[in-house]
Amino acid sequence: MKRISVALLGFGVAGQAFSRILLKTHDAILRDTGYDAVVTAIVTGSRGTLYNPQGLDLAEALRQMNEEGRFDEKSPDFSSMNAFEIVDTAEYDVVCELTPLNIETGLPAADHIRRALNRGKHVISANKGPVARFYRELKNLAGEKGVCLFFETTVMAGTPLLNLADECLPYCKVDRIEGILNATTNYILKEMAKGVPEDEIVRRGREEGFMEADISMDTEGWDATAKLTVLMNVLMDAGVTPDDIDRTGIGSVTAEDIKKAAERGNDIKLMCTAERTADGKIYGKVAPEEIPDRDVFSDENLVAVVSLYTDLMGKITVLQYGLETTQTGYGVFSDLIRVIKNISR
Amino acid sequence: MKRISVALLGFGVAGQAFSRILLKTHDAILRDTGYDAVVTAIVTGSRGTLYNPQGLDLAEALRQMNEEGRFDEKSPDFSSMNAFEIVDTAEYDVVCELTPLNIETGLPAADHIRRALNRGKHVISANKGPVARFYRELKNLAGEKGVCLFFETTVMAGTPLLNLADECLPYCKVDRIEGILNATTNYILKEMAKGVPEDEIVRRGREEGFMEADISMDTEGWDATAKLTVLMNVLMDAGVTPDDIDRTGIGSVTAEDIKKAAERGNDIKLMCTAERTADGKIYGKVAPEEIPDRDVFSDENLVAVVSLYTDLMGKITVLQYGLETTQTGYGVFSDLIRVIKNISR
Repeated sequence: MKRISVALLGFGVAGQAFSRILLKTHDAILRDTGYDAVVTAIVTGSRGTLYNPQGLDLAEALRQMNEEGRFDEKSPDFSSMNAFEIVDTAEYDVVCELTPLNIETGLPAADHIRRALNRGKHVISANKGPVARFYRELKNLAGEKGVCLFFETTVMAGTPLLNLADECLPYCKVDRIEGILNATTNYILKEMAKGVPEDEIVRRGREEGFMEADISMDTEGWDATAKLTVLMNVLMDAGVTPDDIDRTGIGSVTAEDIKKAAERGNDIKLMCTAERTADGKIYGKVAPEEIPDRDVFSDENLVAVVSLYTDLMGKITVLQYGLETTQTGYGVFSDLIRVIKNISR
Repeated sequence: MKRISVALLGFGVAGQAFSRILLKTHDAILRDTGYDAVVTAIVTGSRGTLYNPQGLDLAEALRQMNEEGRFDEKSPDFSSMNAFEIVDTAEYDVVCELTPLNIETGLPAADHIRRALNRGKHVISANKGPVARFYRELKNLAGEKGVCLFFETTVMAGTPLLNLADECLPYCKVDRIEGILNATTNYILKEMAKGVPEDEIVRRGREEGFMEADISMDTEGWDATAKLTVLMNVLMDAGVTPDDIDRTGIGSVTAEDIKKAAERGNDIKLMCTAERTADGKIYGKVAPEEIPDRDVFSDENLVAVVSLYTDLMGKITVLQYGLETTQTGYGVFSDLIRVIKNISR
């Protein structure tokens, strides 16, 4: 029996969702691929760390986190190692980078990834910072080491987009990308269109838990910009960072603007676009734009949407629905299956 | 240098589009995979057949068909073999089934596929008849012989859907499918909503070449039914044929119905749905239904759309745009690349 072992850096909603899916599918994966998929390490920032090179009891780890709010210090697998110590010294084949995002620096996530790749370990990143900031460097490093670097969930969570382009659109060149990539601003603009005051929208979003305390990353367009950067780097080989994107947040959009747009039959959306210009460069832009209210991009229920314009296949549009966080758990899982497929070739 | 050789059964718009893409990408495929992809046979019903076990001059084949309207009898590769003779005796690794569809019987396409599989050849079918009628049998036969049977283009042409589900949604169970799968009826209903009389719509569609002389397969819902059957068999393991689908065409939809629906804020679409019922069976239905006019399914520009509802990943919606026939050429090409990936593992 072959084994594939996973180290989780971060154990929030996504890491827990990943773990539940792995528990559910473990036996089927073993049957289909011959691989016994185990988690050997789970690192959290302030809720403890578990490590066992033989493989953790994942159900017990989930129970501790859900019932006790942290890992139990009396657990035989409880460890005092921090994330870097785990990355550098622990036994694992694949590290999943699920730590909180710092878009400005991409750190410490990028360092976790660099160090794991340098050890010849496969990397799955749900963290878009490193991919937005250091894509070429990390991709080249993974190539040198002959390991996988997958990050499906950095854009549209678990909804296939990067893996779709890679696996199902062979030899297509992407000439243009259009998308709505940030769920929070899309929700705010939608509620504003219904006449709800902005501060009430944000208060309710925080109460219901789908908005963070600080939503400036969303409203200033940084989150959408980081995602567009990932798409541009991966699908168009643009070699850009978030700083290269022409970025405007939704701060200046007023209820009056939305009302006037509606009179013209339009919605206002935080649109992300990337296109090749005549001089061969790739121009990326994030800004509020008017969209016809019957357009697919105006669908009230979508969380995110991307259209890819390709040379060989024409245009494809993919829509994401549902909660980002649990979907991210599935996306990390689907990247893990892709790693297994790759190493069993 | 390894070689992968292809036999094309049919050389209409899709076969020609496939050939142009292969010419364009041949050298890149060789560089990436080590495979020299050649076409050894092209069979048409009444425009001649070319066969050369060393590989045909594809550019010359395209030239003959475009300039002379048929293959040149004086060409050194001109052959008198028919489709069955090619399938049974010619040298090729992959057969692409691109012959005209007979939904009622699935023949002769299904026989081409059976015979090729029995010879241990890989099969790519753009023909939905065989997959709708004989999916389990053909899939089992391909499994026994250890060869690939791919048919991405049978639903949504070259827009990834079947390969997407297979490659990018691992371990997801599909519980429900919704879609608009027939472009012709979608166009007719859209134009009727603008007030254009039905006979004028059909006359114009035929003039511009995107409607066939006999559109009863479309208007009676057979084409949509065959596609839904493919989706149900492949994604839900339903084991059904088109006869098992609850089918209503658009024949009874009047301009008055569409007008009344519009007054309720709705469009009428030929909807395809499949779902697991409480008793574990899978129920499939094709029928005109009212859809809110702001729904994604009401997008004026789409050619087809499918939503998949899964257990692990939630809902994903994929939209197809552009011309079916040229996209089909790309879809067959993407299946060929998948065959190459599979045999190089």
